[in-house]
Amino acid sequence: MNKAKLIAQPGTHELTLTRDFDAPRELVFRAHTDPALIARWWGLRNATTVIDKMEVKQGGIWRYVQTDPDGNDWAFHGVYHQITPPERLVYTFEFEGMPGHVLLETITFEALGSSKTRIIDSSVFQSVVARDGMVANGMEEGANESWDNLDEVLETLTKEA
Amino acid sequence: MNKAKLIAQPGTHELTLTRDFDAPRELVFRAHTDPALIARWWGLRNATTVIDKMEVKQGGIWRYVQTDPDGNDWAFHGVYHQITPPERLVYTFEFEGMPGHVLLETITFEALGSSKTRIIDSSVFQSVVARDGMVANGMEEGANESWDNLDEVLETLTKEA
Repeated sequence: MNKAKLIAQPGTHELTLTRDFDAPRELVFRAHTDPALIARWWGLRNATTVIDKMEVKQGGIWRYVQTDPDGNDWAFHGVYHQITPPERLVYTFEFEGMPGHVLLETITFEALGSSKTRIIDSSVFQSVVARDGMVANGMEEGANESWDNLDEVLETLTKEA
Repeated sequence: MNKAKLIAQPGTHELTLTRDFDAPRELVFRAHTDPALIARWWGLRNATTVIDKMEVKQGGIWRYVQTDPDGNDWAFHGVYHQITPPERLVYTFEFEGMPGHVLLETITFEALGSSKTRIIDSSVFQSVVARDGMVANGMEEGANESWDNLDEVLETLTKEA
């Protein structure tokens, strides 16, 4: 199984996660923009995610609520700035437990031939400290759990296709 | 007259503009969140700004259209992420001429005694190259023209108060 590679140059505001998926780019992009599919993979392995809002258009709001095994809710929201199928998504991301701490995320979907896709997920934070905090708090592990789920969803969809 | 100080550390995604204003913090904050006031100062000296949308709330959209002396329109929009009167504003900023190129702006209003305010305006860009491009394209001069207008509006408001 592929794992994400995290790049976080010291002293910068950016964090980049890159991982390859065994599915065509259109499918990987769809898994990011279809609420029914997002609900199946987004978030940690042992949590469930409910899509509260997902207006996939410029200026549209997204809001996901994740429930952990202890019944705690963790809500996240943001706003879409760019949706360019199947190449690029730009949106903001805010954890509601830390209001006002926002990051700006740009996901690039790169076709590796016709059946593989590279995701380059770049986030810029309001400060280097905020970026470093996210790295220290296990962003790489979190992304990989979520992307392991995505791998499984993509495998199912690829078989269906 | 005070002028903005620009800080852009080489190789980072951030650009910070700082300037002091001769008005109380509440007033400077209001000048940023009241559409009628924004229209009077936002943008370049010889342009006029029309406030198309300005929903000053979390998730609210703002959109300003600036018309230059030759009649050209320049539109900008973004989304509010945090509004904490009179301390802090967080929103995204996009020039519609370059769709998908977004920056995340955090404005901190610092009271310097009861009659002066320091604005610390920090923007993080999707890339260092994008940040450097904005610096090269006269962001400091642009901010100062706009803030010169703000100085005048604040002077009028202070006299009225």
